[in-house]
This record gives sequence, structure tokens and C-alpha cells, in this order.
Amino acid sequence: MLDAPFAKWIDEHQDELIARLKEAVEIPSVSGDASYRPHVVRMGEWLKAELEKLGAEIRSVPLGKQVLDGQELDLPPALVGSLGNDPKKKTVLVYGHYDVQPAALSDGWKHEPFQFTHDKETGRLYGRGSTDDKGPIMGWINAIQAFQETKTEIPVNLRFCFEGMEESGSEGLEELVIKEAKGEFADVDAVCISDNYWLGTTTPCLTYGLRGLSYFSVSISGPAADLHSGVFGNVVHEPMTDLFDLFSKLVTPQGKILVPGINEKVAPLTDEERKLYEDIDVTLGDFEQAIGAKVTISEDKAEVLMGRMRYPSLSIHGVEGAFSGQGGKTVIPAAVKGKFSIRLVPDLDPDEVNELVQKYLKDEFAKLGSKNTLKVEMLSGGKPWVASIDHWNFRAAKDAIETVYGKTPSYTREGVTLTFAEALGKNVMLLPSTGDDGAHSTNEKLDLSNYIEGTKTLGQYLLNVPAAAASA
Amino acid sequence: MLDAPFAKWIDEHQDELIARLKEAVEIPSVSGDASYRPHVVRMGEWLKAELEKLGAEIRSVPLGKQVLDGQELDLPPALVGSLGNDPKKKTVLVYGHYDVQPAALSDGWKHEPFQFTHDKETGRLYGRGSTDDKGPIMGWINAIQAFQETKTEIPVNLRFCFEGMEESGSEGLEELVIKEAKGEFADVDAVCISDNYWLGTTTPCLTYGLRGLSYFSVSISGPAADLHSGVFGNVVHEPMTDLFDLFSKLVTPQGKILVPGINEKVAPLTDEERKLYEDIDVTLGDFEQAIGAKVTISEDKAEVLMGRMRYPSLSIHGVEGAFSGQGGKTVIPAAVKGKFSIRLVPDLDPDEVNELVQKYLKDEFAKLGSKNTLKVEMLSGGKPWVASIDHWNFRAAKDAIETVYGKTPSYTREGVTLTFAEALGKNVMLLPSTGDDGAHSTNEKLDLSNYIEGTKTLGQYLLNVPAAAASA
Repeated sequence: MLDAPFAKWIDEHQDELIARLKEAVEIPSVSGDASYRPHVVRMGEWLKAELEKLGAEIRSVPLGKQVLDGQELDLPPALVGSLGNDPKKKTVLVYGHYDVQPAALSDGWKHEPFQFTHDKETGRLYGRGSTDDKGPIMGWINAIQAFQETKTEIPVNLRFCFEGMEESGSEGLEELVIKEAKGEFADVDAVCISDNYWLGTTTPCLTYGLRGLSYFSVSISGPAADLHSGVFGNVVHEPMTDLFDLFSKLVTPQGKILVPGINEKVAPLTDEERKLYEDIDVTLGDFEQAIGAKVTISEDKAEVLMGRMRYPSLSIHGVEGAFSGQGGKTVIPAAVKGKFSIRLVPDLDPDEVNELVQKYLKDEFAKLGSKNTLKVEMLSGGKPWVASIDHWNFRAAKDAIETVYGKTPSYTREGVTLTFAEALGKNVMLLPSTGDDGAHSTNEKLDLSNYIEGTKTLGQYLLNVPAAAASA
Repeated sequence: MLDAPFAKWIDEHQDELIARLKEAVEIPSVSGDASYRPHVVRMGEWLKAELEKLGAEIRSVPLGKQVLDGQELDLPPALVGSLGNDPKKKTVLVYGHYDVQPAALSDGWKHEPFQFTHDKETGRLYGRGSTDDKGPIMGWINAIQAFQETKTEIPVNLRFCFEGMEESGSEGLEELVIKEAKGEFADVDAVCISDNYWLGTTTPCLTYGLRGLSYFSVSISGPAADLHSGVFGNVVHEPMTDLFDLFSKLVTPQGKILVPGINEKVAPLTDEERKLYEDIDVTLGDFEQAIGAKVTISEDKAEVLMGRMRYPSLSIHGVEGAFSGQGGKTVIPAAVKGKFSIRLVPDLDPDEVNELVQKYLKDEFAKLGSKNTLKVEMLSGGKPWVASIDHWNFRAAKDAIETVYGKTPSYTREGVTLTFAEALGKNVMLLPSTGDDGAHSTNEKLDLSNYIEGTKTLGQYLLNVPAAAASA
């Protein structure tokens, strides 16, 4: 139980903190759709203003241009800035992203995804971005506000880096971080990221490793326009037939990647390492509850955890350009793009994976004997990463979790890929949210209790830094 | 060259006939989407009024209910009626459908699909339904109006059957036709349907056979909601992986169906039959032009024609429930429905095909070792059919084509499935439109020249019936 003044302030100002999250969620900042780009920009402006209200100095940094949906667009700017410059204090860089995944009511949401819905019965705060990643960003703002309102000194200098392209490959981020490593981030001692999830719903986690990502779009094109299957079926080479044939050769139903050269680059498992996974406080039942069905590939808890953390995975996400509506449409799609991605673990490098995938798909396509045209593109790539959990950064967070939740965190390796560890050469830690929040899914939510306790954890973590660093 | 008064009237009233088609196209009567159902109903009411203006007696016949997109809906009514009741005249039943395929600008249309666009440079009339099947229905109305305006006696009794569910499996039609075989259609001597296409763009066709259709929806479901691939990749059995594996076993890139028992039921080819296809006035180049690319499975014209007409085909249309947008989304879809259909030729029966497909997919799914759940549904089924081209019905149409176009038609077997031949036991003929109209595709159009000459052909066909029938 945490009874510090800043924590009491948080408890007493819940409505205000909920209202802040509502404002953020209701700006539909979808980075992957050109028509939403003005909302992403507006979200950045809103966030900059919130940070400035706290006294932070924030710059909106242009990241250049991109081509999306056939249009040339400005990338959403990154927000870079600082609060505090005391040379006696440690400096912590906080990262978050203010863009979100696409969402539509028709995907199966109970509520409009961009209408914030507080279900008071279950205590759930519904809306796209509630947990990924607007909730955690609000958590930082809430904690800083609580310190200021209660005249609590913040014992660290803060640096901020908030981007608006995380859900679309973090375009422009790497260059920015490399540049600011000698600028705004030059004094950074450690990094804290809050953009991933607990394993279940009871034990908090600290994440010290991330799988990387190689995201592929595979275009197969043939006829000049869509055709009627009654008229052209068994006349033309159908792009969909080729695509299904090709994608059936990517991964087995048991999750084994079939692209040659990938599995060979994964470090072999030691007995000691396996024990680490067996010790994590999670059960097969926790997984089944988060998944909502008994469809795990393995029924051995450690195997499930390793499938999630230490092995690569390959998921087929969908097909662009084919019939995707309800009912029946007798179309032969003229050109389709199949999308899949591979999650990477050490020592898989996205560029190497790209080469392996390109070669394999081109070889397999040649075997089909189709006159259609194949094009394989890696849309985005990010390297995998593993950090040291003995650093004061992790100890400060571990102590905060023990104080707020009364539990020792599990140490996990998972989530999205980031470039901070590489570009800054500093310790990077992830402080996740509850495991059933449904990031990237329909009905994404954040539990009110986790919003409140998570805000306290972020604050307490900052308060713990000086002592943890002193004992390092 | 046809210089009958009704034909001159048609030439002189082109603007009026174009305006009629424009009105029809701009009612977005998409039968496969529940939210468009009021437009389908409105289109039926509009068509009924147009027919009544000509003096026809038309009943709007309710066809019962259906469940679509989770809602119970009234099926769009069929329009059944008559014009003329002279016992000395032959009676011809005219069929058409007033519903259309789905269409959206974002699918790649040059113009809004439900905004009629007359490109005066190319003479093309763009819009969803322009050729399939509103153009041909307008052709009948135009021809009858031309007869009336020029005081030309219509030498046949007409019966009408217009449905609003053809693009969604013609639900309710079979029962209606069986019932009306003893009612409104009791005196019918022959049937004329205008709902398919020439082989190319130069030689008119008459169609005496149709491939049937079995349309399948294959549901694979696992997790309760969509999952983040960074968190659950290599943890769960992914429905998309199972679907791609399964669908890769349906058909080869060369169009060979892999479902056991299907090819065995197709009648073997005779040398004589092959010669028929070699004689059809079409070249490989015509096909490549209609397709817009050199992607025919065979480069032998007769093989291409047989692939289209006398052999079955299997096309994969798309996936419902997966990511179908642009860019990248790292989702593991929780439940997906793959859609494919098989075009049927004698002696393939949709119910038999359903049994073969169900058994095959269930057996193959069992081999995958996935804990996900499979459900295979045949959404619609229609039998294949072949008619006699020696009947007066075909001779009257052949003569009309020779008069209007100055060319002998090719005889083809292809297109959509219908129940008239079976239910009425009368000769059924199809009078198609130009081959590059793009029915079911983006940028569907009807050439103005074909709209006008086609209207004349329908009229001349009716004028030819008495003489053709007398010489039978």
C-alpha cells in the first residue's frame, strides 16, 4: 500500500485522469491510413500542449515524408523534450507513441472504437489506444501532475520521446534517436518504455527483451481488372490461387517457420534457460483465459512462454485486394497483396530475414508455373534486443511494483521492437500493462484499476531511482 | 442494317434511353449487404413502375425472409407479370435481375460506381449494374416502348420474371418459378435471358449452356478475439495459417481441381466436340485483350474455351475477418471465413459437390493437428445446364443478330446458373452483351453502341418468333 501524497492525489482525482484519457482516445490517430493523417497530427499537438502545461520544453520534430495510399504525406512529427536539468540527478528518457492501430465498429467492437466508453460495472475503459499506447502516456502525465500538485520533488531529470508512427513501422524514429543521442538525449542514463503487456492479469512484469519484426507484403498480379469467375474461371492463372499456394509454405499449423535459414539462426536452448521460463508466475490457464479459447499450440507452460519470447513466429495477417465482405461475391481478384510478418529473436536480423524470405518466395513462385507477377516487399523491419535486469533502472521499477502491487514482477522478453538500446547504448526497460487489454484487437480496453495503479507505479519508479542508482 | 420503324425510333431516342439506364444504375441495389436492402427494394419498385407504364400487369411477389449480416430481412420481392394474352401467339418469358454486385470507389473505380458516367469519347456507359444486369433489362423496356411508339404490333405474348437476389444466390427464385410454372408461366413456350457476355468484342454469341455453381464459406475460428502477433505469435494455432494450408489444397495454379471425385464426374471430351470449340470465332488475343494481360493458363484457343465452358473451375474469392486494408497491421485474426466457389458442368450436381467438398476439407483439416474449429457451408448451389440450339427460340435470335450486326453468332456455354430450364421444361436461350464489359469487376460498363444495337436485337428477336416457330 502506497500512501505517499502523490498517490493519494491520484486516487482523489480519478475523474480528471479518466477525462484526460477520454480526450486522447477520441482523437482517431490511425497512422496506417492516409485519410486519418490530420487526426494523427492533431493528436501530436494535443499531447504537446498537455506536456507544456506541466512545464516541459517540447519540440515538434518533422521526420520527413512518406508515400501512403498513393499520396505523398508528411510523417507525423515526433515530440522531443525535457523536464528538469539538475546535473546531480539521473536522467530518464520516457518513450511512448501517440498513434494507434486501425479500428472499425464493423470489425466486431461492442462500442464505437473512437468513442471512449467507461463501463462502470466492470471498471473497463474501452477505446482504440486506451492501452496501446495512450493509457501509458497519460500515466506519465498524470504522475508528473500529481508530483507538482503535491509539491513532491521529482528526483530525476526527464527526457521525452513520443512518436506518431509506431503502428506503421516507426518510420523516421531510428534517424531521430541517433541524431538526438548527441542532442536532447545526450545525458540520458536509462530509458523506460511503457508499451507492452503482463503475461496474465495478476502478476506485473518487467520486460528486458523484445522480439524484432520483419513485415512483408507479397503482391501477385495478373489480369488488368477483377474478373467474373463464371466467365474466366479455369481460363486465367488466378493470383489468389498462387497466393494461397505460396503462403501455405510459410509456416506449419504448429508454428514452425518453413523459410529455410531462419530457425538455424536461433540460439539453442540450455537447461538453465528453460528453468527460467518454468519459474515464471503464469499458468496455461492464464494464457487460455487471455486467448479466450483452448487453442495453445503446446500445453506445456514453459513451451508456450518460449514460443512467445525466445523463438521466432510467423503470422499471416490478411489479404488486400480480394473480396473481404460478408456473403458471396464471385470475383477473381486481379491483384492481391498477402501480408505476413515474422517476429525476430537473437540472432535474427531483419535485413538477413528479408533476403531469406525474398529468395524463398521467388523460388517457390517459380515452381508454380504461373504467368502472374510476384513482388515481395519488406514493409518494416526491427531488430530483436535483450537488456540486463541487474541495472538500477530495473531495480527502481521492481521496487515500485512491489510497493504498489505487493508482488514481485516476472521478467519477460516480448513485445514490439525499438531502437533506443542500440542508438543510446543505455539500459532500456519496459513497464507493461495488464495482459488481457487487447492491444491491436477489437474491444481494446484498459482497466481503471490498472490505469490508476500503473500511474502510481510510474511515479514511484521515478522516486526510487536515486536510491537504486546509489546502491549500484 | 435494320431500318424497321422501331429501330429508327431507338436511334432517334438514344438520350431518353441513356437517361433511363442512368436512373437504374444510380439506385445502388446491392443484394449481398443488409444495409443496402432498402435500395434493392426501391429498385424493384422503380422497375415495376417502368413496366406498368408500358401497360404490363406486374405483381410484386414476396419471397420470404433471410438472415444477412446477423439481421433477419425480407428478401427483395420478385416482379412477375405479363404483357399480351393472344392465344394465337407464342409466349416468351423474359428474365433479368435488378440487383447488383457490391462496388466501392476504393476498389479501384475511375468513377463513383453508383454514379452513372457517360464517357462521350469512348462511348462507354460506366456504373455498377450497367451491363449486369440493368442494361439488358432496360433493353427489353426500350424495345417494347419503341414498338408502342411506332405502333408496331408485338407478335408474341410476354411474361416477365425479374428478381433482386441473383448476385446473392437467387434465394427464393427456384420455389417461385416452380410455383409459377402452373400460374403466370403456364403458357410459356420459350425463355430468353440476357445476363451474360460475348466471348470477345466483335462476334455476338448465343448461349445454350451454363456452368452451375457451388459457393462455399469455410470458417476457421480459434481465439475469442483478435490477438497481437507480437504477444501471441507461436503461442496459438492461428486460423489464417490453417486456412491457407487448407485452401492451398483446393486447386493447382493450372486450374486443376484437387477435391477428389469432382473431375471424375465430368464427361470425357470427344474429337468432334473439340472441333466445335476450335471453330468458335475468337482468338487467344481476344481473350488476352478482355483479360488485359497474357495470363491465360493455356495458349491453345480451344483449351481456353473448354476451360471456360466445358470443364469445372475453382476460384478463391477472398477472406472475411482478416486484415484487408492497406499497409501493415500485426493482427492474428481470431476467426476467418475463406470464400471459394466451383463452377459446375454436366454431370456435376451441387449437392454432390457439397458432400465431396465437406468430406475433403474435414479430412484435410483433421490432418493439420490444429485445435481451431472448422465449419464448411455451401452458401448457394445451382445446377449446370445445356439446351438445344435447333429450337425456333434460337433461330429467331440468330436471325435477329444477323440482321442487326450482320454476323453469325457463336454458340457458347457459360455464365451463371438458372432454374428455368428445369422448372419449366422449355427451351431457354441467353442473349449476351459485349465481352469486355467487366461484370462483377471494377469499372463495369456498357458500350453505348451495344446498348442501342442490343435493344434492337431484343426487339427484332421478338419480331422473328412467329416465322421461326412456323418453320419449326
